[in-house]
Amino acid sequence: MAVSTITDVEVQGDRLTVGWADGRRGLFHAIWLRDNSPEPDARDPRNGQKLFNITDLAPETVIAEAAIDGPLLTVAFAPDGHRARFDGAWLKAHCYSAPEAAPERRLWGAELKEDLPTARYDAVVADHAVRARWLGHIRDLGFALLTGVPAEPGMVCRVVDLFGFVRETNYGRLFDVRAEPEPTNLAFTGLRLSCHTDNPYRDPVPGLQLLHCLVSENDGGESIVVDGFKAAALLNEETPDDFALLTRHGVPFRFESEDAVLEARAPLIRLDDRGRVEEVRFNNRSIASFDVGAAIMPAFYRAYRRFAEILQRPALEVGFRLEPGDLFMVDNRRVLHGRKTVGGSGHRHLQGCYADKDSLLSTLRLLEAR
Amino acid sequence: MAVSTITDVEVQGDRLTVGWADGRRGLFHAIWLRDNSPEPDARDPRNGQKLFNITDLAPETVIAEAAIDGPLLTVAFAPDGHRARFDGAWLKAHCYSAPEAAPERRLWGAELKEDLPTARYDAVVADHAVRARWLGHIRDLGFALLTGVPAEPGMVCRVVDLFGFVRETNYGRLFDVRAEPEPTNLAFTGLRLSCHTDNPYRDPVPGLQLLHCLVSENDGGESIVVDGFKAAALLNEETPDDFALLTRHGVPFRFESEDAVLEARAPLIRLDDRGRVEEVRFNNRSIASFDVGAAIMPAFYRAYRRFAEILQRPALEVGFRLEPGDLFMVDNRRVLHGRKTVGGSGHRHLQGCYADKDSLLSTLRLLEAR
Repeated sequence: MAVSTITDVEVQGDRLTVGWADGRRGLFHAIWLRDNSPEPDARDPRNGQKLFNITDLAPETVIAEAAIDGPLLTVAFAPDGHRARFDGAWLKAHCYSAPEAAPERRLWGAELKEDLPTARYDAVVADHAVRARWLGHIRDLGFALLTGVPAEPGMVCRVVDLFGFVRETNYGRLFDVRAEPEPTNLAFTGLRLSCHTDNPYRDPVPGLQLLHCLVSENDGGESIVVDGFKAAALLNEETPDDFALLTRHGVPFRFESEDAVLEARAPLIRLDDRGRVEEVRFNNRSIASFDVGAAIMPAFYRAYRRFAEILQRPALEVGFRLEPGDLFMVDNRRVLHGRKTVGGSGHRHLQGCYADKDSLLSTLRLLEAR
Repeated sequence: MAVSTITDVEVQGDRLTVGWADGRRGLFHAIWLRDNSPEPDARDPRNGQKLFNITDLAPETVIAEAAIDGPLLTVAFAPDGHRARFDGAWLKAHCYSAPEAAPERRLWGAELKEDLPTARYDAVVADHAVRARWLGHIRDLGFALLTGVPAEPGMVCRVVDLFGFVRETNYGRLFDVRAEPEPTNLAFTGLRLSCHTDNPYRDPVPGLQLLHCLVSENDGGESIVVDGFKAAALLNEETPDDFALLTRHGVPFRFESEDAVLEARAPLIRLDDRGRVEEVRFNNRSIASFDVGAAIMPAFYRAYRRFAEILQRPALEVGFRLEPGDLFMVDNRRVLHGRKTVGGSGHRHLQGCYADKDSLLSTLRLLEAR
């Protein structure tokens, strides 16, 4: 008997309780079951979309009858007389009275250098399993390298085509990163760039950033990535009050040039509704004036400094040198990137672009379902 | 004397207090002032980006000296000896000890129909002031109409070019809305669509949606828009516990077709860090199974129903019929849209696309600064 087979069901008016073969039990409310009916008059069988509004259901919906029918649970509702069959495994996966714990995230530091998440471009193009593995690194680690990408202009967008869509911005569909005489952005100099997330002044912030190396005849300029989720976890462990301050208060970010004035507000560490870190936004260059109240300001600055110090710890840093044909992608809401000072007189030329994570995850789900 | 002229300054070690000519007073901490120094060795004069990290500043930074110099406040810091000149008006605008109240939002209901925010396409193209006014409607109301847009395929993207960039998705750069025999989405039928925000299963959710009418030989099919912020404010007024539940707990959204499996999680009403509503996400077709705990589920369903009922109130509904050449744009994180049943055998053809609000606001700031 499959572990998701329902072995017993007990109806209690506006709810029912089921037991599965593995001993787990789950409670489901009548209104929840009615609202999640998979029947063709409730959900369009062609596209899975729900065909009614919550206001179409009676508030006093109860369960008239429930019975086990092989792998299915059949439920009849009152007062509307609707009948629905639920798959036991689906109910188990959506059980909300005793949900399964979310899987632990893999956080990483300098040790990732020993086993960089890498794939070869031609294999990612040709082999769906390799592509899924490579995209899986972004989902699981927020960072992945790609080697052997033809060192030709525009290829960075072709890589995005493998899983999603370029996010065009005022920087264009792609942008060139090289030392410029009149830089509109410090990225376009040889200066060291401390670790940051990109475009924090944008709402929505780009979910993914790709950088592709075309020329690297310079000295220095090594790339660095840091797991912002790991840094946030350390802050929470070491000084939880600092962590709480940075999650509770937003800060403004701003960028101004001749053709754009961009402003956004976000906490440096954003939690989701279940208290998990869902975003780190950090960029010393474009952070604007803090506006937390005067009573909080000194503590907020201490928390900001502490977080910046953690982000600079060598134990968190993964460094590597991009050679022509190398590309890296980061989850820009998790992983910070930076570069060391670009030295020497040799040329250095990267191309970068932005994309969003929803399409990447969609592609990954489709590939993993094959 | 200008109201932003500083008339007195009092230094107290790690902070100072200033008074402006209009009687307002503000407290600024030494670390905040040092961090916001506008001097060329602190901020790049070419692009305004900050040139240092918070960790480059001494935690024990204090004010050695401060003096009024015409419209400027000159501050010398210890221990690093940095000197900075702050503009009195800039300090006043960024005063955090007694900030000015945020301007009230204009919320709207059915009465907006008497004065629809509309512009003509040719005027928006030719006249910067008209364009700024039209984009201002999106910022202030989350909704605007455009008339006289040539009824030609692809024009909806040309309208986006006036202020920003198309957000390409699995639906393409643009998508066609008309009754289809095998619809992948209920939008592509003649069914009534109750008011919703689009693509709630996407993260980031599209910030703007545009719909452009090419053909409307059908009966019915009137468009409807509802101010989600107004509905949220009503829910908060009428049943604050329901409002609190919907802001605190996320719900999953999901869309599945042959070429995409999209999932996102968000509260139906999202608050920013200062407790203001910043997003309404509502879509009965693609909302997935709620997963709040069993103890909360019945109350959560009541809150969800109450919010849905408010969103359906005729007093909130603004209806209009799109004729060929008409286009409307909504802030998809604020304003819900829907349509009545499309009747008759006549053709109806719209084209839609998505874009993001950051570029629109950037364009608007540039136009307003002219």
